[in-house]
Amino acid sequence: MPPQTQTSPETNIEALLSRRARQAGGGPLLQGMDRVGQRISFIFGFPDPASLPASEVAATTTKVLAERGHAALQYGDNAGYSGLIDALLAKLRRDQGIEASRDNILITAGGSQAIDLLLDTLVDWGDAIVSEMPTWLGAVQAFQSTGADIVSIPIDAEGIDVRALARELDRLHAAGNTPKFIYANANFQNPTGATMSLQRRKDLLALTRQAGTLLIEDDAYFDLRYDGQRLPAIYSLDDSGSVVYMGTLSKTMGPGMRLGWLVGPPSLIRRVSSLKVDGGTNVFGAHVAADWLPERLLPHVARLRKVYHRRRDLMLAALDRHMPPGTTWTVPDGGFFIWVTLPEAIDAQRMLPQAQELGVEYLPGPACYSEATGQNQIRLSFSFVADDLIEPGIRIIGDVAKSELREGRA
Amino acid sequence: MPPQTQTSPETNIEALLSRRARQAGGGPLLQGMDRVGQRISFIFGFPDPASLPASEVAATTTKVLAERGHAALQYGDNAGYSGLIDALLAKLRRDQGIEASRDNILITAGGSQAIDLLLDTLVDWGDAIVSEMPTWLGAVQAFQSTGADIVSIPIDAEGIDVRALARELDRLHAAGNTPKFIYANANFQNPTGATMSLQRRKDLLALTRQAGTLLIEDDAYFDLRYDGQRLPAIYSLDDSGSVVYMGTLSKTMGPGMRLGWLVGPPSLIRRVSSLKVDGGTNVFGAHVAADWLPERLLPHVARLRKVYHRRRDLMLAALDRHMPPGTTWTVPDGGFFIWVTLPEAIDAQRMLPQAQELGVEYLPGPACYSEATGQNQIRLSFSFVADDLIEPGIRIIGDVAKSELREGRA
Repeated sequence: MPPQTQTSPETNIEALLSRRARQAGGGPLLQGMDRVGQRISFIFGFPDPASLPASEVAATTTKVLAERGHAALQYGDNAGYSGLIDALLAKLRRDQGIEASRDNILITAGGSQAIDLLLDTLVDWGDAIVSEMPTWLGAVQAFQSTGADIVSIPIDAEGIDVRALARELDRLHAAGNTPKFIYANANFQNPTGATMSLQRRKDLLALTRQAGTLLIEDDAYFDLRYDGQRLPAIYSLDDSGSVVYMGTLSKTMGPGMRLGWLVGPPSLIRRVSSLKVDGGTNVFGAHVAADWLPERLLPHVARLRKVYHRRRDLMLAALDRHMPPGTTWTVPDGGFFIWVTLPEAIDAQRMLPQAQELGVEYLPGPACYSEATGQNQIRLSFSFVADDLIEPGIRIIGDVAKSELREGRA
Repeated sequence: MPPQTQTSPETNIEALLSRRARQAGGGPLLQGMDRVGQRISFIFGFPDPASLPASEVAATTTKVLAERGHAALQYGDNAGYSGLIDALLAKLRRDQGIEASRDNILITAGGSQAIDLLLDTLVDWGDAIVSEMPTWLGAVQAFQSTGADIVSIPIDAEGIDVRALARELDRLHAAGNTPKFIYANANFQNPTGATMSLQRRKDLLALTRQAGTLLIEDDAYFDLRYDGQRLPAIYSLDDSGSVVYMGTLSKTMGPGMRLGWLVGPPSLIRRVSSLKVDGGTNVFGAHVAADWLPERLLPHVARLRKVYHRRRDLMLAALDRHMPPGTTWTVPDGGFFIWVTLPEAIDAQRMLPQAQELGVEYLPGPACYSEATGQNQIRLSFSFVADDLIEPGIRIIGDVAKSELREGRA
């Protein structure tokens, strides 16, 4: 057939889509960031804008580009910049008690790329995966787009419900089905704020090993503890290569750096690495972070802990003052989130437009679940909104909830 | 089953892998970047280290972080930083003659994330995809890991062979199979250096439309033309939403920025966007690039063109002087690569260790093909090696090739 110029109709994109794209459907997660400060926004896990270390990063950038601009602006190693890897290994040893070496680690573009790479490496359409639920909404979106069968495990005050997990693993085992992984947060779980007790950590690890699967321990909020004692990372309790540990600089140095990491058994890291064709992750930012991290992280985190501790307490006090009777909420030892359960009759999604009209926004619970539930729940982030706007914001949410109840719409 | 602490054997990672991970197999593409300057390296499409705009980027970073550090270090829009989008839309209009709007564009982490996202959005295991071949080795790796049936189309001096393409599309059509896309470079093709004539561009577009598929026009080297006149981007010839245009700052501002873009029909961009859960692409770098681009790109590109034009000519002269009889090579009008075809009896992969021992490295042809071919071909990048090392490097390759021929090992 000789090429012919002819007027074709518009190309039918829908006919060309993958199963994954058809399944995803939803719009983009983050939009209109330019306008996000216009409301009192309790929606996202955004750090405090005023605490971002802009002048330190500027000074570090100038130094780094003068010393090694030829490397910082060039392609980078697949595993990530070696200087940042070494700085992170030292930080993980010092703070997390995690012993790892260069064979164990990959730098990723935040936790998002880490999850994407793990899903690419482990999951085929129809595979079983296990996750505590509710969970990080980015993970929910990523899990859903893989076409995996998502097995949800509830959470209580001590973290993932290991009895429910054992039951589900037994059920899968009886069906000859090994889940590809179990996903969990041990510290200040997103969104519930729950921290796993040491016993839970041990039980979860034992169940993971019994099931012959991997545990993905996502520890995005590790550095931000306000109460209580540090507990060992599950990764550090394991000697069987059953745990992949995820971390990020998004909650400390800043999300704009888009830098996170995966620590795991070398056999897995090698496999993930062969699917990581990215020219090096964020080489410029990685060089800057490598120089910033060793001296600057700890004092910066100490400042952040004060800010967020205070904001958590402000929000807890405001909830106490303004929520309608029958409302409960969690008291997190760290992290960014309080998880609120409103009286059952309230639909948090339906009341959101009223709150928005009054200048406040929050995350309706269903975004944190892979199935349709959590209608009367909301996730409140206390990290992003300035101190003096927390109380007014919570008051508005309380008022809207009370009027929902009064008007019997609920 | 109650949780039990027991000593399990090492977790069997291999049993948990996806098809994709098992298929990929190969090691990481980029390793040991710290040591890459120790050899005369013609391997990679790396820009000239000395030309990277380190001091400009430092100054811009300081300004940007002072003005809007709260945004540059925060999460960003899914589509990319709006300031960078606007700067790129202006650049695309001015330089590429591409009219696009915010609905048409996504910022990506270089061309790599752009390809990954397109593959996620379009390709299921076993789908047919079409690519000119040889091609960019990153694309080869990414294509192979999808489990797609890769249909290879040869290239001649005028670009993709449209007769061969028409035959393959007919064959697929007869089998009821619509390929998910056709992948091609119109300018200074990687690795052959070929530039498509205007007629080829039109023919390729017509064939794409007839087949009801998408053309992925990857134009990474657009700005770096040393000879001849600019030809219109295929994207700008299309009015049916059949073309996705890819570009990158890696070859101009620097690969360390990890910034590229996708321009395409809004219906496709929306779908890609819903699979792009990344917290915003490289927000920090994007803010810096947004300020650098409007005033700095053109003068910087003018400087780069002089450097690379000179290096291309140095390499062509050296090839003329040192290659054994029966060797042919391409003369690219732009870009980074010369594609060398050695006498058929030579195995470029086998002779590589000898060249490395003598301090030189190049890319053996097979890395640029999805099937096993190109044994007597090599890709030479003239961009990375300093002027005075090009001639000595080529002489070594010529000597090794000649000795291969002499010793009858070939």
